[in-house]
Amino acid sequence: MPQDLSDIVAEVCRDVQNEIGTGRVADYIPALAKVDPRKFGISIVTCDGKTANAGDADELFSIQSVSKIFTLTLAAEKIGAALWERVGREPTGSAFNSIVQLEHESGIPRNPLINAGAIVVTDVLLEGNGPQQTIDSIIAFLRRRADDDTIQFDPEVARSETETGDRNASLAHFMRGFGNVKGQVADVLHVYFRQCAITMSCRQLARAGLYLAHAGSDPVTGEEVVSEARARRINAVMMTCGHYDASGDFAFHVGLPGKSGVGGGILAIAPRHASIAVWSPGLNEVGNSLVGSLALERLSALTGWSVF
Amino acid sequence: MPQDLSDIVAEVCRDVQNEIGTGRVADYIPALAKVDPRKFGISIVTCDGKTANAGDADELFSIQSVSKIFTLTLAAEKIGAALWERVGREPTGSAFNSIVQLEHESGIPRNPLINAGAIVVTDVLLEGNGPQQTIDSIIAFLRRRADDDTIQFDPEVARSETETGDRNASLAHFMRGFGNVKGQVADVLHVYFRQCAITMSCRQLARAGLYLAHAGSDPVTGEEVVSEARARRINAVMMTCGHYDASGDFAFHVGLPGKSGVGGGILAIAPRHASIAVWSPGLNEVGNSLVGSLALERLSALTGWSVF
Amino acid sequence: MPQDLSDIVAEVCRDVQNEIGTGRVADYIPALAKVDPRKFGISIVTCDGKTANAGDADELFSIQSVSKIFTLTLAAEKIGAALWERVGREPTGSAFNSIVQLEHESGIPRNPLINAGAIVVTDVLLEGNGPQQTIDSIIAFLRRRADDDTIQFDPEVARSETETGDRNASLAHFMRGFGNVKGQVADVLHVYFRQCAITMSCRQLARAGLYLAHAGSDPVTGEEVVSEARARRINAVMMTCGHYDASGDFAFHVGLPGKSGVGGGILAIAPRHASIAVWSPGLNEVGNSLVGSLALERLSALTGWSVF
Amino acid sequence: MPQDLSDIVAEVCRDVQNEIGTGRVADYIPALAKVDPRKFGISIVTCDGKTANAGDADELFSIQSVSKIFTLTLAAEKIGAALWERVGREPTGSAFNSIVQLEHESGIPRNPLINAGAIVVTDVLLEGNGPQQTIDSIIAFLRRRADDDTIQFDPEVARSETETGDRNASLAHFMRGFGNVKGQVADVLHVYFRQCAITMSCRQLARAGLYLAHAGSDPVTGEEVVSEARARRINAVMMTCGHYDASGDFAFHVGLPGKSGVGGGILAIAPRHASIAVWSPGLNEVGNSLVGSLALERLSALTGWSVF
Repeated sequence: MPQDLSDIVAEVCRDVQNEIGTGRVADYIPALAKVDPRKFGISIVTCDGKTANAGDADELFSIQSVSKIFTLTLAAEKIGAALWERVGREPTGSAFNSIVQLEHESGIPRNPLINAGAIVVTDVLLEGNGPQQTIDSIIAFLRRRADDDTIQFDPEVARSETETGDRNASLAHFMRGFGNVKGQVADVLHVYFRQCAITMSCRQLARAGLYLAHAGSDPVTGEEVVSEARARRINAVMMTCGHYDASGDFAFHVGLPGKSGVGGGILAIAPRHASIAVWSPGLNEVGNSLVGSLALERLSALTGWSVF
Repeated sequence: MPQDLSDIVAEVCRDVQNEIGTGRVADYIPALAKVDPRKFGISIVTCDGKTANAGDADELFSIQSVSKIFTLTLAAEKIGAALWERVGREPTGSAFNSIVQLEHESGIPRNPLINAGAIVVTDVLLEGNGPQQTIDSIIAFLRRRADDDTIQFDPEVARSETETGDRNASLAHFMRGFGNVKGQVADVLHVYFRQCAITMSCRQLARAGLYLAHAGSDPVTGEEVVSEARARRINAVMMTCGHYDASGDFAFHVGLPGKSGVGGGILAIAPRHASIAVWSPGLNEVGNSLVGSLALERLSALTGWSVF
Repeated sequence: MPQDLSDIVAEVCRDVQNEIGTGRVADYIPALAKVDPRKFGISIVTCDGKTANAGDADELFSIQSVSKIFTLTLAAEKIGAALWERVGREPTGSAFNSIVQLEHESGIPRNPLINAGAIVVTDVLLEGNGPQQTIDSIIAFLRRRADDDTIQFDPEVARSETETGDRNASLAHFMRGFGNVKGQVADVLHVYFRQCAITMSCRQLARAGLYLAHAGSDPVTGEEVVSEARARRINAVMMTCGHYDASGDFAFHVGLPGKSGVGGGILAIAPRHASIAVWSPGLNEVGNSLVGSLALERLSALTGWSVF
Repeated sequence: MPQDLSDIVAEVCRDVQNEIGTGRVADYIPALAKVDPRKFGISIVTCDGKTANAGDADELFSIQSVSKIFTLTLAAEKIGAALWERVGREPTGSAFNSIVQLEHESGIPRNPLINAGAIVVTDVLLEGNGPQQTIDSIIAFLRRRADDDTIQFDPEVARSETETGDRNASLAHFMRGFGNVKGQVADVLHVYFRQCAITMSCRQLARAGLYLAHAGSDPVTGEEVVSEARARRINAVMMTCGHYDASGDFAFHVGLPGKSGVGGGILAIAPRHASIAVWSPGLNEVGNSLVGSLALERLSALTGWSVF
């Protein structure tokens, strides 16, 4: 890396400047629709302790599907390899909330980063716990990882998700019919809609993901969050499945494991180098942050962090 | 028809004798699983007032999906041609509770005789009424059509259906996500599971369907239940869609409009001739009464009632 | 039937007058695209020897998929029930040249009236014969049925079909990969494209189909073409599968077994009454003759010939 | 990497020893079916000039789909970004020769590493050249990359592929119907079946792929084969799409871009480190070399070359 990290971030910001405000903000719930499309933030935390932040890096946004990385981490820790009997790890050719594949494969979702798979992951976390306890433990994990006790979910977003949540209720009932959701659907969705409604800043999110860049352990606290093998495997799933039906495109252009959310956030991991969070609410036609994706493509080119 | 109706029925009974008890009784709920597989009943009511009954023609059974013919009749009367904006009338290549086609066609079920379509039909009946009022009106219609005030649903079956009803809950939420189910899913299923749990005998069922054989009017009471055009169209839908993914096979072998249920009942209509109900709990590999189908094939051959 | 047949035909013609010229003429080959969209013909032959013709009833048109009824008849006569091991008899939810269902069902087409099924039927006819002999025997059958030795195929249409025939070549190779096409693909398509290119008038076509309305035998010559049971079964397949993904709609509106072709022709059978051919080149959005369908709906209403 | 490369290779060989001979050898053509299932070879070439070989590393095998990496390289060089208008770069949830997705996406294959996509890639190479010239240029490229003028295709395998090639003929005609194959199907398949029939040893194959590990240039000759950006992108496509419907699984377990063939070979790229070829004819249930996959998983763990 020939330049200082903050210089690189500044160059990334310049490069995407003209695109900020483009893309289409998610509007299926009012709380997301009203977000200012001109927001853009980026945060980088490196394994050796450097940080760089720019733009709206400290503004809270709805992490939505980015939460799936953290619940996947918790479920893998809870039940280990048994997780992969209930959810696959193959990319899906279908749209992100498609139910077709699910029927074809008898209620086993293709991977834990599509909605159906994440609902199963949440059901795994729920087993033996109440819904309140489960969402509390997810938030507690994020607070610990981000070293920030203020992290919380947005009750208005959670309420809206519940009101418009027929598609996810359908998925959950569908898998329950196959025996692959074991809890009550209302309980599973109680947790699921709240985990999606968690709000974080880019700074918090990049910090929270750092263990995935550092072989499973937190380089600041020294805590082993997951084993090195597990961290690599979570990164592998992010690479092949992290961007719905545009995962191949993200790998092609950015070359880093990443997970996007409809709130406009993306967490990307540069193994052995850094954890990166970007946020910009306007989405491209496949539902990933338009400016966030461009910023990561530029960052990858400038740093040489592409894994390929 | 060269013979007396009761002679024909006797011959049909002889012809299927060796098959009685074969087939697989539906076992997804206990109340259905415990039915004696050796039951077989048949009832015929002709447009000119003749009747013939044989075997267990007076024993009550769970009519299940046969109820879809009657709720279709009621919904068509309630909202007329507007019904066909919410449900199609094309046969489906997929299995009876498939959700694939539904996604492809944006929440509009292929026809009113698959589960998804029947749920929309029930939702139509529910509009402007409470769930209790709706199931009451369905039962009232059947009592009037069968001229028998004892018709009721089986609360044990309704409860079991509810407990194992995740697939139907999934379908209902799925269509509600597209705006094609308008009521609360719990209300729609309250009615739907009760209509499926209605118990009738072959004698009651054949009598209840007679208006479809007689151009829409009841030949006994003279009441016009539906117009002649509507009766013909309901028969057309039964012909092309009445037996899930074996509708073509039923048309090929029997040549009459018909609707089967997993309880082992089939209502068949011989336009201008008769209404026929058969019942035998063992199902063939596509989910229709094995002996009932054979009996109708023989009856059709002996009477020449095939529409082709 | 309260009126004279010619009066009814005149009324049908008046009723559809304003629609003539609407619809979209098939344009995938030049020879079809250049047909005058304002053509409309209708011919009826009754089982008791009456005939009625109107409009362009004597003009030749490309029968296209209507030919599938006649090759089905020949293949059923050639190998009997064994035919149904190579082709199903269920309607298909997919578009008429879809390959999806075919993959799902291991190369066994859903029914003999979609392209894939008709290609298998042609392959059956080809077994033990050369391509030239096979197309000759199909044409000979039609000449005998229509009592008209001038029937022939249009070489220009056959050539165009071949040139644009990649989709059908794909289907044939696909099924050959499963072992369900046994001849060379080039030979099978040689016959298939010629049978589709056969030209007939409404008068010839109605006469040719008369055996299907008269229990399998030709009422004029007394010849038994197929058994009564086989005639009924062919009619059943026409009813459930004869109009691609609009078969349910045709049954709903017309109530007669029928088979359409993209040339704008439709053969409809009123069992025990008559054989009817209509022709008008403009197609509706599902690929069936727009005016032809309307004319049959009116005819069915005026005559009461609907089987329902 | 704590050990010498040859020690690591020896350890890999020990670790997979007990699995050698398991798996199911491809048997759709005789020439593949007769290969000894107990063969196992591995070759590694590092960017800094080290090599390690073990087992049957010098025995020739049919590279089959591994050839898709090299034709992709050539097509990308020939027409640049225009290639991505004719083929996608997303993983597919369907089986490797599925035609379903292709219909859904109007003849544009999901990616260049499934059969349909590779056929389009071959069609790109064919444009402006004859079939003989095209296969010659593919072989010339491989000879140059492997620094070995003996590389050739096996005419017996090519002939067998042609004879059993109905599925690929079907795919090619299907895409030609959409205009996405422009050459004659016979010409495209002439080249395609020969490229699949190319035989190479592990040693040749690892050497041939070295440019992908070394940012696009050959570290031995200094030749820039493709740009660094293009090399990375080809690696990204290998990672997300290289193992049919087990690409996610390969990423999860091995963590390297790779491409398998039904002949039992796999080419894997460790960016900035090495090019690796393994070969063992027994396939696992998803069609990739069983022992080859295990060997790469062990190698990745021992070397730390996983990109994650």
